[in-house]
Amino acid sequence: MTENPVPTHSVPERHGRLGILMPGLGAVSSTLIAGVIAARNGSVAPIGSLSQMGRIQADPADPASDKPLIRDFVPLAHLDDLVFGGWDPISANALEAAQVANVLQGPDLAAISSELEGVVAMDAVFDQRWVSRLEGVRVKDLTSKWDQAMALMDDIERFRSENACDRLVMVWCGSTEAYSEPTEVHMSLDAFEQGLKDNDDSIAPSQIYGYAALQSGVPFCNGAPNLTLDFPGMVELAETRGVPICGKDFKTGQTLMKTLIAPGLKSRQLGLNGWFSTNILGNRDGEVLDAPENFKTKEVSKLGVLGSILEPEANPELYGDIEHEVRINYYKPRGDNKEGWDAIDIFGWLGYEMQIKIDFLCRDSILAAPLVLDMALFMDLAAQRGESGIQEWMSFYFKAPQFEEGSVTEHDLFAQERMLHAKLREFAG
Amino acid sequence: MTENPVPTHSVPERHGRLGILMPGLGAVSSTLIAGVIAARNGSVAPIGSLSQMGRIQADPADPASDKPLIRDFVPLAHLDDLVFGGWDPISANALEAAQVANVLQGPDLAAISSELEGVVAMDAVFDQRWVSRLEGVRVKDLTSKWDQAMALMDDIERFRSENACDRLVMVWCGSTEAYSEPTEVHMSLDAFEQGLKDNDDSIAPSQIYGYAALQSGVPFCNGAPNLTLDFPGMVELAETRGVPICGKDFKTGQTLMKTLIAPGLKSRQLGLNGWFSTNILGNRDGEVLDAPENFKTKEVSKLGVLGSILEPEANPELYGDIEHEVRINYYKPRGDNKEGWDAIDIFGWLGYEMQIKIDFLCRDSILAAPLVLDMALFMDLAAQRGESGIQEWMSFYFKAPQFEEGSVTEHDLFAQERMLHAKLREFAG
Amino acid sequence: MTENPVPTHSVPERHGRLGILMPGLGAVSSTLIAGVIAARNGSVAPIGSLSQMGRIQADPADPASDKPLIRDFVPLAHLDDLVFGGWDPISANALEAAQVANVLQGPDLAAISSELEGVVAMDAVFDQRWVSRLEGVRVKDLTSKWDQAMALMDDIERFRSENACDRLVMVWCGSTEAYSEPTEVHMSLDAFEQGLKDNDDSIAPSQIYGYAALQSGVPFCNGAPNLTLDFPGMVELAETRGVPICGKDFKTGQTLMKTLIAPGLKSRQLGLNGWFSTNILGNRDGEVLDAPENFKTKEVSKLGVLGSILEPEANPELYGDIEHEVRINYYKPRGDNKEGWDAIDIFGWLGYEMQIKIDFLCRDSILAAPLVLDMALFMDLAAQRGESGIQEWMSFYFKAPQFEEGSVTEHDLFAQERMLHAKLREFAG
Amino acid sequence: MTENPVPTHSVPERHGRLGILMPGLGAVSSTLIAGVIAARNGSVAPIGSLSQMGRIQADPADPASDKPLIRDFVPLAHLDDLVFGGWDPISANALEAAQVANVLQGPDLAAISSELEGVVAMDAVFDQRWVSRLEGVRVKDLTSKWDQAMALMDDIERFRSENACDRLVMVWCGSTEAYSEPTEVHMSLDAFEQGLKDNDDSIAPSQIYGYAALQSGVPFCNGAPNLTLDFPGMVELAETRGVPICGKDFKTGQTLMKTLIAPGLKSRQLGLNGWFSTNILGNRDGEVLDAPENFKTKEVSKLGVLGSILEPEANPELYGDIEHEVRINYYKPRGDNKEGWDAIDIFGWLGYEMQIKIDFLCRDSILAAPLVLDMALFMDLAAQRGESGIQEWMSFYFKAPQFEEGSVTEHDLFAQERMLHAKLREFAG
Repeated sequence: MTENPVPTHSVPERHGRLGILMPGLGAVSSTLIAGVIAARNGSVAPIGSLSQMGRIQADPADPASDKPLIRDFVPLAHLDDLVFGGWDPISANALEAAQVANVLQGPDLAAISSELEGVVAMDAVFDQRWVSRLEGVRVKDLTSKWDQAMALMDDIERFRSENACDRLVMVWCGSTEAYSEPTEVHMSLDAFEQGLKDNDDSIAPSQIYGYAALQSGVPFCNGAPNLTLDFPGMVELAETRGVPICGKDFKTGQTLMKTLIAPGLKSRQLGLNGWFSTNILGNRDGEVLDAPENFKTKEVSKLGVLGSILEPEANPELYGDIEHEVRINYYKPRGDNKEGWDAIDIFGWLGYEMQIKIDFLCRDSILAAPLVLDMALFMDLAAQRGESGIQEWMSFYFKAPQFEEGSVTEHDLFAQERMLHAKLREFAG
Repeated sequence: MTENPVPTHSVPERHGRLGILMPGLGAVSSTLIAGVIAARNGSVAPIGSLSQMGRIQADPADPASDKPLIRDFVPLAHLDDLVFGGWDPISANALEAAQVANVLQGPDLAAISSELEGVVAMDAVFDQRWVSRLEGVRVKDLTSKWDQAMALMDDIERFRSENACDRLVMVWCGSTEAYSEPTEVHMSLDAFEQGLKDNDDSIAPSQIYGYAALQSGVPFCNGAPNLTLDFPGMVELAETRGVPICGKDFKTGQTLMKTLIAPGLKSRQLGLNGWFSTNILGNRDGEVLDAPENFKTKEVSKLGVLGSILEPEANPELYGDIEHEVRINYYKPRGDNKEGWDAIDIFGWLGYEMQIKIDFLCRDSILAAPLVLDMALFMDLAAQRGESGIQEWMSFYFKAPQFEEGSVTEHDLFAQERMLHAKLREFAG
Repeated sequence: MTENPVPTHSVPERHGRLGILMPGLGAVSSTLIAGVIAARNGSVAPIGSLSQMGRIQADPADPASDKPLIRDFVPLAHLDDLVFGGWDPISANALEAAQVANVLQGPDLAAISSELEGVVAMDAVFDQRWVSRLEGVRVKDLTSKWDQAMALMDDIERFRSENACDRLVMVWCGSTEAYSEPTEVHMSLDAFEQGLKDNDDSIAPSQIYGYAALQSGVPFCNGAPNLTLDFPGMVELAETRGVPICGKDFKTGQTLMKTLIAPGLKSRQLGLNGWFSTNILGNRDGEVLDAPENFKTKEVSKLGVLGSILEPEANPELYGDIEHEVRINYYKPRGDNKEGWDAIDIFGWLGYEMQIKIDFLCRDSILAAPLVLDMALFMDLAAQRGESGIQEWMSFYFKAPQFEEGSVTEHDLFAQERMLHAKLREFAG
Repeated sequence: MTENPVPTHSVPERHGRLGILMPGLGAVSSTLIAGVIAARNGSVAPIGSLSQMGRIQADPADPASDKPLIRDFVPLAHLDDLVFGGWDPISANALEAAQVANVLQGPDLAAISSELEGVVAMDAVFDQRWVSRLEGVRVKDLTSKWDQAMALMDDIERFRSENACDRLVMVWCGSTEAYSEPTEVHMSLDAFEQGLKDNDDSIAPSQIYGYAALQSGVPFCNGAPNLTLDFPGMVELAETRGVPICGKDFKTGQTLMKTLIAPGLKSRQLGLNGWFSTNILGNRDGEVLDAPENFKTKEVSKLGVLGSILEPEANPELYGDIEHEVRINYYKPRGDNKEGWDAIDIFGWLGYEMQIKIDFLCRDSILAAPLVLDMALFMDLAAQRGESGIQEWMSFYFKAPQFEEGSVTEHDLFAQERMLHAKLREFAG
């Protein structure tokens, strides 16, 4: 492990147990748990986690200023103080989830199998109409959405007391739901609660988890592109209850690259004719997205990024006519190793065309797992500092960052990183 | 052309003719001239040029502030006020250079051939020991380096008066010279001048151009990785004469991508095992770099970028053992269309490995030409504002930015962009 | 042009004018015509054409035997003796088609524009229900399919006499039609003719062209994956009238590569887990295939090739469980330059996995045009030699070769080449 | 395992123990042994081995004829009857070699470690002047080349008797030696034997192994591009002693693809401007080839393939001016997973250019190991059938097939496969 230089500022104290609750105990969550166990053992560093490995320049105006580790700069929960829980409609526990996901190599999995087995999945709130390609078997036997919400709140409290948690955070690690837009029932908290009672068709399972979390005072992070909390009723609840929220859709492989490269093209005033992105993946995520209604949700999330970075209105000659296409293909041989192939068609001086091709042989859950850790720790800190409602500074982690209505969404990875650092400095005082 | 919103600040006035002098009238310079002519005609926008197409946020602290075009924000020379000149050991004029370079398609070239033919190359200071793969034919018949310097100064003055230039800027667009390190003769201005008189072997042709420019009060930008001005004697001269300088090595295709992606990996705390870069190109540049002693100069320039971005000392677990390789291969069928292929080996959570492959089918001169325009205009402005010596804020344009001794070189493209914007705001007042 | 060694056998005589009639005067046919004109002028060799550039080993058993050019080995029509004609629902003539297709660079097109303009398109038999993405404007004003067939036969005779053609060949260069399977009406010639009279919905426009050609004694080659002649009624007609036919679907970019590489994998006993193929293209073909019903036709054609080459039944451990996926995406910036990207997942010794990625930046019409020339000349020769019905030896040219019922379709490019050579030797006597 | 249809011909009997002796007990040989053990256990099929998995059409003229497995068609040694041995200057046994090579995953290696440990390496004949990047530690303490040859012959006899082998075959699995061309000493057997006694500098270690094998009546296959047996003196010895030989240089990843694709381009008369091949690999092989004198040997071997396939003299317009470049780069992060990247520049109709890029993420030893098995079994059969001297029909396995002087080397993979099949049919009678 890195030897850190002696910090020149007082290291923050951190104490108390933090429970991380994950709807969806699948590839991402089991990989997260496995990696935290390994990091605790000291067998491998928590690579990919900004909260654990990242540094921050104490004084942004002075490049020569101290650059402490973020975890020495703000009082984040310790890895040793984390407890994991979750719900899943298919897997009985994190070990089973890890075995199905097939992300971890045999020996890596074997070393921690009993610890993983101990993370037992609670029965899920699940509705196949929202995820047509999955069959739920470990599902709550309740048909009323209101009753489902109450049952989840009971689950939360039981988990809290059984695990002696001081604080909780919820991170959605479940599937992408079918595409939907907000309806009347989403326009206010009252309408939403009435909808729960009326079993309104337009309320998706993830929204019920979100409601239960917020009502229980638990911060919520949305790792999928689902609506979930992205509507007035839920924002109202977050603000009323004084709970921070953030989302949507972990920014990992292909979109991560896109939000690196697009700002670079723009900084050099290189024009863009088109960007064709295809993905092949063979995990449960790929299977779910093979259904057009679920792909639509993901597509909207993935397509948004170029516009806000390139600002076609301000740069019509360069970005006024971009053909941006995204495809996701279920292809079994790839397993969890998502492969993203991008064909980028740019033009420069005298209008001459050039091409960039990117083949990213990535691992979906390996990239997503540390984001779950970071967002849990940062949102826990935000809650302790009294933040509530949408946390725009968390946009660094998301494909389709949730912003306040009226705000301009920021997609540039580096601008997002500066926002995050600024907030951490604010928290550090 | 873009219609610009009515600016809310007073547009700066710009007047007087600016001469752009280029040692090396080859692919880059002829492409530059062709594009400026096309932009003047309005037939195609000056794509890729920050000075012409880019915008700047007037108040960096306020995202909602005005975003004028840079050319409306600071008083840059107009395209209509530019005059081009140069030296070349091979081509007689810019048309001949363009024909050999074969960058421009037939009809594009035909439309402007007489204007290009009018840019006549002056005889060059050339020495094959520094560029073994080229044979110089249009070369000054002078063996003393001191005499060569004086002749170049005469050329400069003649060009200035014949073209009624109010101001001049020089941009090195010539070949990469054989690798060399500073010797005694480079340690002070006195020593260097004595070296010129003694015909010291360690003084390269590009250094003689640099000396002539600075002595003539002409700002100098170094587009190649050559030593040229990057030694104490020349910095002393720049400061003494009050002339701004910048370099080295245009940051275009592959290195541009590298300085986009490396900051992105670091922002996500993704580790790096290795980065293998190969280039294939078939132009004069490729031919020159096929000689090991010239490749060495380029290699040093290209290899430096990862270290300063990734900071291995601060992040040893992520970046402590990177295998970074760069190859350049002369491959005739590619012509001026340089192709860069990168294999990037990263690792994430639990140490699991992933791969990124990038194939960049770029056009060398198309990417470089607008940089020459930008640096000429920006350096001209700097000179008018009384700047002298090394201009670190121009690092945005260079693979191996020249920094003051003791400064830490910045390679991150986005950090470089912020430095450049800050300076422009300072100039705008 | 190549200087050919003096042939040791008597060169065949060739005489008489051959008319090549193409339903679909678009990118492929205009490119074909342009290239034939250029080859006649001697300005560029007919590259990609086996009939013009290819050699054949006179005695297959003796590697040291003479290897004459194929055009010196069998009596093919001369390029100088070709006349072109066609039908199109959109373009008025071959020049207009070439301009829309945008395959040829400006100067190449300009040089032959008047000749291209002279190839006037006859009004087409067209029905948007079979090609939903196209809008026909130059269409025969006839609603009865029988009347349409008669009108096409009149067109054929008029073309023959007006152009003083000794012989004719028809090559389908039109769009891919919506997917359909043979119905009752396709089961015999009688049923089909009754269907024409009844305006049967399951008779597609390409079938009407096919009928008209065969009834006129004109050999027919099918460059699209459409049913067209691939059903009992039409095969009966071909045999009755003594006319040779062949198809289906020009084998050009991605599938060509597939039928090269798959035999190679098999020859080395390397296993295959999956083959994912994606295509991006922006021409009229791409637009048409963006409609799912048309893509289906193409997909069936493209998917068939692996099975017959790899023989999963005989090699279940290697090829028993292949995931083979093909996608075609309309992506405007690519124009006629179709790009095919393949991800091939293989496994070897000890079951270890390896990957092959192929990015083929090809030009659709450039690859297809010489195939049209070859098949016209070879089918003309076959007709003269009294061949009729399905010409299996032409499978070399097709993605989904039409074979006699009961025959095993051969997809291996090299096995196909041997069949073709064997037939040519037979023709040579 | 595959269930084979009941063969319609009598299955050949095979008996007796066959020893496979490998100079170079490294990645390839340890992987070979591991795979044979696994195949014996039935845990994984011997994928990639033509002798074990391949089928042959009994009657080449009748596609409907029986297609038995090759191992049921000719009497090859059984996997159960194989014994392995070898020499190595570094590793003590096959387990150590496998651990260093790092080809096999932990569990795969663990399962067979004791069997691998049992394959003990004999001390090598080694000379660092021929492989500058390796340091030999387990080396015979003999300075006379003649004595070294005698010692190897003793080793061979001891191995034969200790392992009760009925027959032996030797396959060179060692490193690529520095480039050399035949000298006087190579021109006859007499001269060579005198050279051994004189300690002639131009005799490389691999030649001493070759001499020892042939003198011991042991067939020899050369898996590296070294000279070894490719000179008159050694061919004379092979013929005199009645021993079959073959070589040179296992045709695996990139070159295998090349000999698939080049015949395909030619079959379609597509022109070739250039083929740029780069390889990155991090194993011992890569390290050795990082020395220019060793790379030269490999380069010559790799560059030869295009010429004989494309026949530039017969097709000057298509293949008269090809730029063919091959690079090999040592890049540690790749380990044994050799990556080959090819940029292929072709042209077609009207001279228009197209590009093919191939990225082959292959595993060097996984591809090579089954070739060693095949060639050992086939050469053993050849020896039993009385074949001696150069076995041209084995060219299927080699980058630079050794052919009789005056023969034209065949590089086309499919033509080579037909030669091999023809010979097997001859052996089958």
